Amino acid sequence: MTVSDRPTAVPFTTDDYAARMSRVVADAGAAGLDGVLVTPGPDLVWLTGYQPTAITERLTMLFLTAEREPTLLVPTLERPDAEAAEGTPATTLVDWTDGADPYAAASPMLRPEGTYAISDNAWAMHLLGLQSALPGSGYGSMTQRMPMLRAVKDDNELARMTAAGAAADAAYGEIVRVRFAGRRETDVAADLAGLLKQFGHEQVDFTVVGSGPNGANPHHEAGDRVIEVGDCIVLDFGGLMFGYGSDTSRTVCVGEPTAQIREVHEVVRQAQEAGVQAVRPGVVCQDIDRAARQVITDAGYGEQFIHRTGHGIGVTTHEPPYMIEGEEQPLVPGMCFSVEPGVYLAGNFGVRIEDIVAVTDEGGRRLNNTSRELHIVG
Amino acid sequence: MTVSDRPTAVPFTTDDYAARMSRVVADAGAAGLDGVLVTPGPDLVWLTGYQPTAITERLTMLFLTAEREPTLLVPTLERPDAEAAEGTPATTLVDWTDGADPYAAASPMLRPEGTYAISDNAWAMHLLGLQSALPGSGYGSMTQRMPMLRAVKDDNELARMTAAGAAADAAYGEIVRVRFAGRRETDVAADLAGLLKQFGHEQVDFTVVGSGPNGANPHHEAGDRVIEVGDCIVLDFGGLMFGYGSDTSRTVCVGEPTAQIREVHEVVRQAQEAGVQAVRPGVVCQDIDRAARQVITDAGYGEQFIHRTGHGIGVTTHEPPYMIEGEEQPLVPGMCFSVEPGVYLAGNFGVRIEDIVAVTDEGGRRLNNTSRELHIVG
Repeated sequence: MTVSDRPTAVPFTTDDYAARMSRVVADAGAAGLDGVLVTPGPDLVWLTGYQPTAITERLTMLFLTAEREPTLLVPTLERPDAEAAEGTPATTLVDWTDGADPYAAASPMLRPEGTYAISDNAWAMHLLGLQSALPGSGYGSMTQRMPMLRAVKDDNELARMTAAGAAADAAYGEIVRVRFAGRRETDVAADLAGLLKQFGHEQVDFTVVGSGPNGANPHHEAGDRVIEVGDCIVLDFGGLMFGYGSDTSRTVCVGEPTAQIREVHEVVRQAQEAGVQAVRPGVVCQDIDRAARQVITDAGYGEQFIHRTGHGIGVTTHEPPYMIEGEEQPLVPGMCFSVEPGVYLAGNFGVRIEDIVAVTDEGGRRLNNTSRELHIVG
Repeated sequence: MTVSDRPTAVPFTTDDYAARMSRVVADAGAAGLDGVLVTPGPDLVWLTGYQPTAITERLTMLFLTAEREPTLLVPTLERPDAEAAEGTPATTLVDWTDGADPYAAASPMLRPEGTYAISDNAWAMHLLGLQSALPGSGYGSMTQRMPMLRAVKDDNELARMTAAGAAADAAYGEIVRVRFAGRRETDVAADLAGLLKQFGHEQVDFTVVGSGPNGANPHHEAGDRVIEVGDCIVLDFGGLMFGYGSDTSRTVCVGEPTAQIREVHEVVRQAQEAGVQAVRPGVVCQDIDRAARQVITDAGYGEQFIHRTGHGIGVTTHEPPYMIEGEEQPLVPGMCFSVEPGVYLAGNFGVRIEDIVAVTDEGGRRLNNTSRELHIVG
């Protein structure tokens, strides 16, 4: 991919944001809620395009309720920044000044006995402030009460997700050509970060390079370990492009793999394939987990698959819906999530293979399309 | 400052972290609490040195209570990372696996009718999970119940704060030598970020370059505006060095300032001086705000000083105590905070002057020591 054929994104308009806000108000009503309270972070970015310079102790909150127009409460000194966002013209801006009680300023927007969903990552301090100002009000987390808030992507969002996936694939296409043996994990991770940026990511969120025994820790990032010939290496990387996430994993081997590495890799590859093949509208999330897990359990590695099979992705790289036992949310066209089974042999090596999959009317469309065979690197 | 004379930091030991944890347990008891609940972010870094790779929906929580040793609950797949932190050997590690209920795992650590302080930035989702698992339990935010948790710095911390301040000063010493006129605010901001790193910061948190009318928005960062001769420019920058914050502001002028700029700058300079001179143990926070504000009000600009005078600083760049009307916390030796009055003339220009001040037995010691006179740049 060269600079000239780098994709561009169609901007979201104020109308797009207004439409999202009205849909959320309707969905909240259908969920038996009096409204939705949104604090800075992915929910607010998705609903208004507004991201404060820093998320601090000063309360910023968007109130989406049936009885009034969308209202955004901001600290006075952040008001100019809030006004500059694309979606905020579709809200009524209200500000509060240092020294005032922000929860008193918020109270008129809420029913004293109302029930609201609040952003998962809202600060506990702010929730406690609201609970104290309105002791009769009730709250539930967004994940619990409105888990599908951002889950179904529209065409513009899917185009961005597709571009992010293609860029991550392009980065993988280059990383397998660099030297691994004799270099530190952190060196390869730096290469990966540079490639993600080169292919259009504005933000790199993670670049896991788990070599040898480090690969058996699923959340190992990259350390000082020098990569050796014979190492099995988990690569798991992603970030944001046009504001939407990429996240893909491949496992490579430096030189000739052992029979055990080959065997485990093939088990994981088949498990991942089974998970992806199970995707279609109406299937529930836990069935994706079950499909992938069954293959690994049947091969005798069930105890070594120590995490869920996947997570939703969009304006964040981890969000509902989760592909996990117990999650009975049905899949809907437009949902995007990872399918990423793994097997982790403590002290030895790990294998993980991951694609982002978008649910279509017919099944699942992979947004990552590099080879899932065991790749030999130098 | 050259690389060879760059300061180094004395590492914090497991014993240092253990001592902090025991002090917090004692302070919590004195505050009438059954304990303190700490989630990833500055509180957890300060208490254990542990910072998860990413702060996600998976619950990580440190329980500091009188009835048991410090206990750190982590997701199973993040346990190896948690074990690697310097302070975690002073805790009992407990893990929970994907699919399990983390709030059920947390419940045995809490009294069913207990009252706890919880980290300000704990996710609302986690607080709601605890409230639901233990309906008789009660919570208050750390800022409300334990505002002085991290406020008083020990000698090792003060040495780090001093080094961070000196590095920010060194960056200012260089930035006034670069070209301003004809360049974009973002270009100067990039220079500032590079200088902070060059002088030892591991993280740059903000680089405000507010030129001309942009300077009148206190939270403007840096934009595409091309700086012109005659512009008054607010520079406000900082980040972390050895894990501790810097934050300093100076206002410069490109070429000859107008009489109005000179007048407003001198008012702010005198206000900042009055704020710093008011610092001594036993004085309450609001008196620092009053001392600085009085100068500005007397000069007729009271309505244009639209924010509090300062904020605490340590492992974050914004934390209690706040220098604001109504805050009656007395100053204690070892506290560090900003003194940063400003005057903002909408559509025209702004002026802010800021130093970090450490409270000593005798008064206040500035950690920023560059000239506070109006500096003319090119």
